[in-house]
Amino acid sequence: MPKVVDHAARREQLAAALWRVVVGDGVEAASLRRVAAEAGWSVGSLRHYFETQADLLYFAMELVVRRVTDRVAALPQETDPLATATGLLHQFLPLDADRRAEMEVWLAFASRALVEPSLRELRDEAHTGVRGVCRRAVELLGAARPGLEAERLHALVDGLAQHAIVAPDVTTPARQRKLLAAHLESVTAKPRS
Amino acid sequence: MPKVVDHAARREQLAAALWRVVVGDGVEAASLRRVAAEAGWSVGSLRHYFETQADLLYFAMELVVRRVTDRVAALPQETDPLATATGLLHQFLPLDADRRAEMEVWLAFASRALVEPSLRELRDEAHTGVRGVCRRAVELLGAARPGLEAERLHALVDGLAQHAIVAPDVTTPARQRKLLAAHLESVTAKPRS
Repeated sequence: MPKVVDHAARREQLAAALWRVVVGDGVEAASLRRVAAEAGWSVGSLRHYFETQADLLYFAMELVVRRVTDRVAALPQETDPLATATGLLHQFLPLDADRRAEMEVWLAFASRALVEPSLRELRDEAHTGVRGVCRRAVELLGAARPGLEAERLHALVDGLAQHAIVAPDVTTPARQRKLLAAHLESVTAKPRS
Repeated sequence: MPKVVDHAARREQLAAALWRVVVGDGVEAASLRRVAAEAGWSVGSLRHYFETQADLLYFAMELVVRRVTDRVAALPQETDPLATATGLLHQFLPLDADRRAEMEVWLAFASRALVEPSLRELRDEAHTGVRGVCRRAVELLGAARPGLEAERLHALVDGLAQHAIVAPDVTTPARQRKLLAAHLESVTAKPRS
């Protein structure tokens, strides 16, 4: 009788190994060899799932999308709209090691997608997903111009996340929270006339 | 008599060739071979200036810093502070082919710097330079909290620039201008109380 392989379980095992490498040493460290070692597999076995480094990056990005989507779906319902909006947006900021790793995967993936058309669909899906949550946040806050405010908030969040990666000593988690809070205040502010 | 080589002039010639390649086909197309061909040089001659692809990316980033710094220095003095601030900040948004190419070089460079410590000094210099111009802009506008507003504006500008690269059909030059204008309004707005 042939050995029955549970591919779904095997992929989860790989995802967990990949994530440990990315969180510990960064996305650039996640080579086929390294992930295989972390999972306790041979490189040959790993190649049944991923032929190239690019396949592995794609898998990492799918994992990021799933992680963030699951967290957003699991957020407790707050009664205060500002608390709800803040809770949603904190899912996209590198406030801890996991979210920092997610952001590094996203930056590497987005950069790679500029020269690799096969990555663009997933990149655009992720970009559009974040935009949708930003839209939800500004609607919760009662923004007068939700379309424009969603775009502005999305740019702020992505810029903040980038700065947290580039200059972690300045754009600390506490600073990210403070800047986001100041921004959310401005979403419903009236211009000084 | 040995041939006298004007290295400064040669470097300018290389910079121009490199820039034509980057603007036309993107930063990833700027290989040693391609830049040599564009400049009408042999790859061997080019290697007197750049040994590796990484050296070429470094040179491209230095060129971007110089281009932006020169433009900022050459801006005409406006009497209206909002016009001055807007003019300054437009230098960092991909509003045309040249500024788009600058942004692509910056994203590639910043991404590479995450794994290449030798690039971090120049990356940090560029990051700090933009932060300084953002500070100038919010001071011109009379922001009540210039430190915080400079950081928020910087994040907004970098996020917008990223979106213009990732989703150019949505984050068009006109949209970038509009979102920046809305943001500058918010810099001096009073919170709704």
